[in-house]
Amino acid sequence: MEVVKLDLGKKSYSINLGSGLLNDGALIRTAVTGNKVFIVTSTTVASLYLPKLRQSLDGLEVDTIQLPDGEKFKTLETLELIIGELLEKKHNRGTTIVALGGGVIGDTAGFAAATYQRGVDFVQIPTTLLAQVDSSVGGKTAVNHRLGKNMIGAFHQPKAVFIDTDTLKTLPPRELSAGLAEVIKHGILADIKLFNWLEDHVEELLNLDKHAITHVIKRSCEIKASVVSIDERERGARALLNLGHTFGHAIETNEGYGNWLHGEAVATGMVLAADLSMRTGRISSDDAGRIKLLIEKFNLPVCPPLDMPAARFLELMQVDKKVTDAGIRFVLIDTIGKAVMVDKIDTLTLQATLESRERLCESF
Amino acid sequence: MEVVKLDLGKKSYSINLGSGLLNDGALIRTAVTGNKVFIVTSTTVASLYLPKLRQSLDGLEVDTIQLPDGEKFKTLETLELIIGELLEKKHNRGTTIVALGGGVIGDTAGFAAATYQRGVDFVQIPTTLLAQVDSSVGGKTAVNHRLGKNMIGAFHQPKAVFIDTDTLKTLPPRELSAGLAEVIKHGILADIKLFNWLEDHVEELLNLDKHAITHVIKRSCEIKASVVSIDERERGARALLNLGHTFGHAIETNEGYGNWLHGEAVATGMVLAADLSMRTGRISSDDAGRIKLLIEKFNLPVCPPLDMPAARFLELMQVDKKVTDAGIRFVLIDTIGKAVMVDKIDTLTLQATLESRERLCESF
Repeated sequence: MEVVKLDLGKKSYSINLGSGLLNDGALIRTAVTGNKVFIVTSTTVASLYLPKLRQSLDGLEVDTIQLPDGEKFKTLETLELIIGELLEKKHNRGTTIVALGGGVIGDTAGFAAATYQRGVDFVQIPTTLLAQVDSSVGGKTAVNHRLGKNMIGAFHQPKAVFIDTDTLKTLPPRELSAGLAEVIKHGILADIKLFNWLEDHVEELLNLDKHAITHVIKRSCEIKASVVSIDERERGARALLNLGHTFGHAIETNEGYGNWLHGEAVATGMVLAADLSMRTGRISSDDAGRIKLLIEKFNLPVCPPLDMPAARFLELMQVDKKVTDAGIRFVLIDTIGKAVMVDKIDTLTLQATLESRERLCESF
Repeated sequence: MEVVKLDLGKKSYSINLGSGLLNDGALIRTAVTGNKVFIVTSTTVASLYLPKLRQSLDGLEVDTIQLPDGEKFKTLETLELIIGELLEKKHNRGTTIVALGGGVIGDTAGFAAATYQRGVDFVQIPTTLLAQVDSSVGGKTAVNHRLGKNMIGAFHQPKAVFIDTDTLKTLPPRELSAGLAEVIKHGILADIKLFNWLEDHVEELLNLDKHAITHVIKRSCEIKASVVSIDERERGARALLNLGHTFGHAIETNEGYGNWLHGEAVATGMVLAADLSMRTGRISSDDAGRIKLLIEKFNLPVCPPLDMPAARFLELMQVDKKVTDAGIRFVLIDTIGKAVMVDKIDTLTLQATLESRERLCESF
């Protein structure tokens, strides 16, 4: 088993990573303080992994809620449902909420843990690659509003994260690729060695080679943990993790939650961010090409949706959380391995990127 | 102007108290960092005080939402409405949410500030006595769930609290009394001098004598600030502020939010807590009598609702936040001026208190 430590003073915790962790009841129970647990999971994940987890929690009082699958259920209505179940089953402030599932489950269950009786303990057991390399680490929780993604949320760190790499065996290929988008992101923004390594291991990763997949999960968690530990509440450095997300959130909002996977939207968002970085004199055209090529090799989309003219992007990006009074803030790429925050992007240049559909969708 | 400081490290803030503060734009603006403000208020309060506040915020971009009056609107649906307005009006992370109103407005607006884009600045301008002496101080925010009061919330400290005592002139007498219940609570749990003083100044307070009312607001804020500063998240001492609340929340839930005012339910809850304290050998029968008498003098109810048999109380108290795995936890009274937390109350004794309706409703 590999362990990555996220250092946050009293709120520090371990990200535990390995094959078969779901069966390790003794390990999982180290993160549970009281004798009551409330598992939040989805119908699909429940049918695959809930019995295992319940067995590992044998001896504790365990209640469960199964949510329908999909980003469109990441809402306040679902939060109300979860809180209702917690109350019906008499869970109190000493309970531990466990998220078993992908990013939607983790975000929603985490927000329930952040707000139930003003906060209870929380444990993440992510079962998708995207959740394992990104959303389960760092304490961001949220649900969506009709008018914007993740607009209602809280920072609420888990007590521990348990990543069982065996769960990836049942992950649809499209979701595997979506998770790899966030791995690529970590390479682009912080680690050129990881980026180079990804270029050399496309096949192994798509075939779920155990060593390759463990390597990228661990490296992603390390990068994320080191950024979060210096800037938990995203006042500075943490915002770099939003590379590709300003464009990506606009795509997700426009297409309706869940039609594009989050990782897919971020992938296209990174292609747009690379284009904008090139146009503003940062990244070279060669490097922008390498980024786009790697994203394509992982079977991820590189073109924005056809029904999104530049004006629609601009409109939607106005409500993104990265907007400050100074204008839209973008994470851009200086060189592969180094991202920077740029506050005021010239609107004409931004428009040029958004209108360069042909170039983006054909070739650099 | 009086100033009470709440000491919480980086999250410290001032509670400013005096006549005419709503007109003091320079003062209020010291708590606003950006240039955008979003005021959450109720229709009743808006008609009385919104123009004044808007004038004091002249020069800033100000948007407003007016909510219908009443505890029954303290819900996730209202939260969704507020967040929708914030998004429609393009408020970003740099905005400041200002609560102008009573406890319901403060709790709901505060929860919106805690969760909008995972947290924005918040300012409290309480206009009821209950909010001024209690709910606006200390950072507790929440909305209700159908199955329990304040079950969905967060700790989110304001940047400042501005208490304009002139607003009490328009407060209905019933709400004035409800606020005085929390003042009595502060006396019982922490300050026998305040309790004695209240016994001697009933008329002045009910007649809104300026010096008397300023004295009890200031003293209440001081007591609350000192408790919160040593235990922000209610892991210990802060729970003492819940004196009367375990019984009180059960009454509120049973009667439907808003039919009993919160302060009224707490008043009756304190009478029950005094009775239970007496039965468990803490407070003297004389002191229990003094408590009940003072509550009655302020025109507050001392009898539980007729439709609440002991069994119903017990059922509802099971879901109260003060429930731990060890059993129902009560704040009891050792002597007037000193409350204690008691973890395991014998069920028969509790039942005796709940069944002593005749005694409670006639005389001690």
